[in-house]
Amino acid sequence: MRKRLSLDDYTKGILSCDRVVLSRAITVIESKLAADRILAKSILESILPETGKSIRIGITGVPGVGKSTFIESFGKFLTSLGKTVGVLTIDPSSQRSGGSILGDKTRMETLSHDALAYIRPSATGLSLGGVADNTRETLLLCEAAGFEVMIIETVGVGQSETLVHGMTDFFLLLMLAGAGDELQGIKKGIMEMADAVVINKADGINVPIAEQAIRTYENALHLFPKSRSGHITKVMACSGLDGTGISELWDTVLNYQKLTIANGYFVKNRQSQNIDWMHERIRQTLEHEFYQNQKVKRSLATVEKLVKEEKELPSVAAERLLDLFFFEKNKLGI
Amino acid sequence: MRKRLSLDDYTKGILSCDRVVLSRAITVIESKLAADRILAKSILESILPETGKSIRIGITGVPGVGKSTFIESFGKFLTSLGKTVGVLTIDPSSQRSGGSILGDKTRMETLSHDALAYIRPSATGLSLGGVADNTRETLLLCEAAGFEVMIIETVGVGQSETLVHGMTDFFLLLMLAGAGDELQGIKKGIMEMADAVVINKADGINVPIAEQAIRTYENALHLFPKSRSGHITKVMACSGLDGTGISELWDTVLNYQKLTIANGYFVKNRQSQNIDWMHERIRQTLEHEFYQNQKVKRSLATVEKLVKEEKELPSVAAERLLDLFFFEKNKLGI
Repeated sequence: MRKRLSLDDYTKGILSCDRVVLSRAITVIESKLAADRILAKSILESILPETGKSIRIGITGVPGVGKSTFIESFGKFLTSLGKTVGVLTIDPSSQRSGGSILGDKTRMETLSHDALAYIRPSATGLSLGGVADNTRETLLLCEAAGFEVMIIETVGVGQSETLVHGMTDFFLLLMLAGAGDELQGIKKGIMEMADAVVINKADGINVPIAEQAIRTYENALHLFPKSRSGHITKVMACSGLDGTGISELWDTVLNYQKLTIANGYFVKNRQSQNIDWMHERIRQTLEHEFYQNQKVKRSLATVEKLVKEEKELPSVAAERLLDLFFFEKNKLGI
Repeated sequence: MRKRLSLDDYTKGILSCDRVVLSRAITVIESKLAADRILAKSILESILPETGKSIRIGITGVPGVGKSTFIESFGKFLTSLGKTVGVLTIDPSSQRSGGSILGDKTRMETLSHDALAYIRPSATGLSLGGVADNTRETLLLCEAAGFEVMIIETVGVGQSETLVHGMTDFFLLLMLAGAGDELQGIKKGIMEMADAVVINKADGINVPIAEQAIRTYENALHLFPKSRSGHITKVMACSGLDGTGISELWDTVLNYQKLTIANGYFVKNRQSQNIDWMHERIRQTLEHEFYQNQKVKRSLATVEKLVKEEKELPSVAAERLLDLFFFEKNKLGI
């Protein structure tokens, strides 16, 4: 049996980048046990002053775009510069399947054996909001452990890209060159979030197609609203396989960081991400309390059916459910 | 003093398209008085079976794009076909200024004197969520009064386009041809919602520029994900001034309606809009209760400051505020 660690053990272990302790701390963060929740809060509060020092990079792309190979190549490039790199994954599929299409360390085998890198998949079996909270807190632990570049990866389906965008400084969309409908698998609005659109697998016979894709996307992005960061979205070709474009991408990230630190956006963005996180958590909890309420649960399906069939007004239905909820809440104190 | 109308007066008046009664009913809907809230609910419930029969068209565009002239031209075209047309406006500026940049009937003077048209600006002084609720309910009243085409207009700033998109069948983005950065004033993601992008003011010397703009946007939209409706976003030139393209636009709307009724999207979309409206109302009310809570109000600024300065974890701060709220709620019953 493993020895129980004290709060002090955790704090010291994390700050000295002891990977065993770091991994155990993340497990505590991910735990739903009440005792662990309290411990997690204490650990996070004790390491909070040491967080925020990494550059946080979000990476998304549809399955098959070559995210693992790309991140492995990008990560190895960074460690070759002597940088320490943490990779976290948010996997929206893991809730449904119980399994995971991302959470497999062996996908990035070379990088996972690199002494300067640390890879951690997201915990499974949680709501996406829960996964996002865990990932944000894991990010803080990794920063306290001194990782200089934090990569948050997610597959480009569902809401997870928006969550990753909301917790990173620089957001990268991986794409494949092709028949002009490469975005079919990507959710609406994602392309407009990207600080860089990277055409992956730009190697061998794909090189001319990738170059054509760059021109096409540059033209399209030109029509998009300017980002508040002052940065102009960069479109570039990369190859996770032969390393093409990887060093240029890193330059782009560094230039972005320099620009946004100088114009104040970097700090302002992180501040509003923190504020948004707080309000998001509040909203999640309020909705959780509401939809888990026994009376609400019992009535919801019937009410939704009436609303769907236009037999009841949505606003009236909402008030009916809210009355059930607040009535119960008001009774609790009796 | 005006005679008080009974519920029966309201119902009969609305169903027979008595504009005086319709306007008074809308005023009841917009009222915050408790007695009016109850009356509003009764009116809405009594006319509910007669709603849903119009085609609902959302129109947005930045200030200066020529929305009024365009809607006047489009509306006159529709009434010339013998169609009855209702125009509602959602004006996000009216909350802040107390005044309104849209809510001015005289903007569409010819249409407002048309016997087949009815124009109603949104009530001022409400939150955007409140305006949206009012507009949805006003839409239902107008449908019960028999208006065949309902146009919901909003200025392209803030969140109001998303709200209008969420309550209409067909969403139209008005644009100006220009230097390629026409979208600068439009919020990210709006272009991807559009069922039609209409380059307005395509008259006189603007014609060739508009044609260039059509090609550019068609190329850009080609890169966007396909809509679930099965409809391919149409890019077209119109002139509110000389009527160019107006009849083609109406054909596009009719084709859209035919296609989506045939493939089932039309009904499915309305059903999910109703369900979304209900959940949105629930979320709004929960958040309203939370943020209006006295204890939460007293602590919020301090807590936000700590979170902003990274002195407190957003998740911990959220829980602290939630404890204040639920503690108070639990006490209420004592």
